[in-house]
Amino acid sequence: MADTTETTPGWLAPDDLEQTRARMPILYVDAVPVRVDDSGEVTHIGLLLRIGPDGTISRTLVSGRVLHHERVRDALLRHLEKDLGPVALPRIPASPQPFTIAEYFPTQGVTPYHDPRQHAVSLAYVVPVAGDCRPRQDALDLVWFTPQEASSPQLQQEMPGGRGVLLKQALAHVGCLG
Amino acid sequence: MADTTETTPGWLAPDDLEQTRARMPILYVDAVPVRVDDSGEVTHIGLLLRIGPDGTISRTLVSGRVLHHERVRDALLRHLEKDLGPVALPRIPASPQPFTIAEYFPTQGVTPYHDPRQHAVSLAYVVPVAGDCRPRQDALDLVWFTPQEASSPQLQQEMPGGRGVLLKQALAHVGCLG
Amino acid sequence: MADTTETTPGWLAPDDLEQTRARMPILYVDAVPVRVDDSGEVTHIGLLLRIGPDGTISRTLVSGRVLHHERVRDALLRHLEKDLGPVALPRIPASPQPFTIAEYFPTQGVTPYHDPRQHAVSLAYVVPVAGDCRPRQDALDLVWFTPQEASSPQLQQEMPGGRGVLLKQALAHVGCLG
Amino acid sequence: MADTTETTPGWLAPDDLEQTRARMPILYVDAVPVRVDDSGEVTHIGLLLRIGPDGTISRTLVSGRVLHHERVRDALLRHLEKDLGPVALPRIPASPQPFTIAEYFPTQGVTPYHDPRQHAVSLAYVVPVAGDCRPRQDALDLVWFTPQEASSPQLQQEMPGGRGVLLKQALAHVGCLG
Repeated sequence: MADTTETTPGWLAPDDLEQTRARMPILYVDAVPVRVDDSGEVTHIGLLLRIGPDGTISRTLVSGRVLHHERVRDALLRHLEKDLGPVALPRIPASPQPFTIAEYFPTQGVTPYHDPRQHAVSLAYVVPVAGDCRPRQDALDLVWFTPQEASSPQLQQEMPGGRGVLLKQALAHVGCLG
Repeated sequence: MADTTETTPGWLAPDDLEQTRARMPILYVDAVPVRVDDSGEVTHIGLLLRIGPDGTISRTLVSGRVLHHERVRDALLRHLEKDLGPVALPRIPASPQPFTIAEYFPTQGVTPYHDPRQHAVSLAYVVPVAGDCRPRQDALDLVWFTPQEASSPQLQQEMPGGRGVLLKQALAHVGCLG
Repeated sequence: MADTTETTPGWLAPDDLEQTRARMPILYVDAVPVRVDDSGEVTHIGLLLRIGPDGTISRTLVSGRVLHHERVRDALLRHLEKDLGPVALPRIPASPQPFTIAEYFPTQGVTPYHDPRQHAVSLAYVVPVAGDCRPRQDALDLVWFTPQEASSPQLQQEMPGGRGVLLKQALAHVGCLG
Repeated sequence: MADTTETTPGWLAPDDLEQTRARMPILYVDAVPVRVDDSGEVTHIGLLLRIGPDGTISRTLVSGRVLHHERVRDALLRHLEKDLGPVALPRIPASPQPFTIAEYFPTQGVTPYHDPRQHAVSLAYVVPVAGDCRPRQDALDLVWFTPQEASSPQLQQEMPGGRGVLLKQALAHVGCLG
C-alpha cells in the first residue's frame, strides 16, 4: 500500500504510525479506476505499475490511508489525484457503500489479503475516470486493460497482497468477470 | 408510471400489454437523477412535475419499462434521455446492482409501492447527471431540490404510488437522509 | 431455468407464456444456497445436479420465475422449498437489494448470460440454509462444495447459460473468490 | 459509542487510545439487531437503552471498535454477544459489504454523525437475531420496535450522535422505511 507520511500537524509522525500499526486496524481506501461507455458499462480497468520499497515491480490499485478528520470520499479523491494526476476527473460514487471491504492482515491466510506491515481494513470502490491520467509520484505507469485481460490469472499474479482477488471482486461487481 | 406503448415490431401492442399486465410482473427501472460535487456528494435531487392520464399533478422519478431484448442499462439511458432531454449526460452506474427493488402491487398495502394498473418490479438506481436537463414529452418541468428539501414530508406526499418512499431510500443510500 | 407452468387461475397458461416470452423480459430470481459458520463466513456452496428437457446433465443454482402478485422474497422462498425440500430452513435476506442482476438473453454474447427460450432478468441472492436439504421434483441431487472447489474452472464449465459466472459473482460478493 | 478498553497484551492501553484517537480515524462496527419472519422480512428492530458516562439515558445500536488482528465479522459477533447475551444467535451477514458507512466526526456538521471523543468510521450491518436476547454489561434493556415505531421522529431523537439517521438508513435498506 502507498504510504502517506504527511507532516501536517495533527497527523501521525512516522514513528507514531509504526507504533499505532502494531496495535490498531488502520483505515484505508482502495479504488479501481475504470473507463466506462455511455451506458455505464466498464470498457477498461486501469492498473498502476509500481516499484515498492524493496525494488520489486508490481501492478496495483489506487490505495492509501484515510487521515484524521478526512471524509472517506475526500480520501478517495486525494489518492486518485495523487496517483492519476490532477486532470483525471474521477467520478467518486454518490453512495458511501463500498462494493466490499478488504481486510489486510499481517499474518497470511486469515483472509485473501496480506500486508506484512499492518492490519489494514480497506473500503473498496470502483471509480470511473473521464479525463487524462498522468501518473506521478512513486507510480511508474498506468496501463488500461479490457475486462477480459484484467480477468486473466497471469495479470492477477502480478498483483501482490491479494489485490488480484480484489480486482476480481470489482470485476464481478460491475458484471464483467469473464 | 410513464407508459411506453412503442409500435416497433416485436414489442407489445397496447392490447397485449394490458393482457400481460394482468398476469405477469412487469420489469421496470426507476432512476433518481442527482447533481453531485467533485467529491461525489449529492447536492441536488431532480424531480419531474408530471400530469397523469387523469389530470392529476404529481412529482415523480424517471421511470419506465424494460423492453424485450433491451439491457437494463440501455433502458435506464433511454428513459433518462426521454425525460431529461438529449444533453443531460447521465452517468449510468458501472454496477448493475440496484440500491433497492421497488415492488409495485395493484393491491394496496402489500408493499409501500402501489400501481393500480399492474404488478411492476422496478430496479432502482441513483444516476448523477452532469449536463443540461430539458424535460420533454409528457413531462412538465424538472425541479432540483436539496437533500434537505427532498427529505421533507410535504414533498414526499406529492409523490404518489410510494415514490416518496423510494426517494427516501435513495437519499438513505447516498447518505443524505436528514 | 426451471419452468413453472402452474395452472392456478390468473397465472399464464403454457401457450400464453410462450407468447409473452417472445415479447417481454421475464422476471426471475436466482438463489445461491450456502452453509455459513457462526461468524457468517461461507463454508460451502450448494449446487443442484439437474437433467434438462433434452437429457443433458448440468449443475445449476436455485432459480425460477416470479409470479403475478407474488413478492420477490416469497418467490425466493417458494423456489428454495421446491428445490431443497420443506426443511431446508432458508434464511431469505432481510434486504431486497440483490447482489447483482443477471440478464439472460436469447441471443448469445450480449451479456455473459444466455437462455435460448427467452429474455429473462434475474435478481440474484446468496441464501444461507440451516436445515436438511432434500432435493425433489426434477432435481437429481444437491452437492455441497467448498468455496475453493466452487471457484474451479472445471466446475463452472458444468454450469450452462452463464450460471458459472453468476456463481463467481456470488463468491466475490461474500469474499470467497479464490 | 460503547468503549472497549481491553487489557489484553497487544491492544491499546487507555492512554494510548486517547492519543491515537486524536490522530487517526478509529474503525468501528454498528449492528442493527432485527427479528425477521420466514420470508426474511423485518418485523422488529432491537434498540438498547443505555446510560452514558455522564448519566444521560439514550437509545442506541450495538456498536464497538474493531481490534487489532480481529476480522470485522468477529468484531460484529463479539459486540453482539456482549450487548445481547450469549444465546441471541445473531446471523452475521455472509457478505462483508456494509449497507453503509457512518463517519462520526468530533466536529459537528461535517456528516450527520458525531462523536465528541474521536473520528470513528463505522461499518454498518443489519443483523437478524433468532435467539433470546439478554442484555448485560452497561446495557440497561433491549426493546423491540416495529418498523413503523422505529421510523417515528420521536424515537429517533432519543438516539444521539446521528444513530437515528443510521437507523433510518437501515430501515431504508431493508425496505421498511415508512
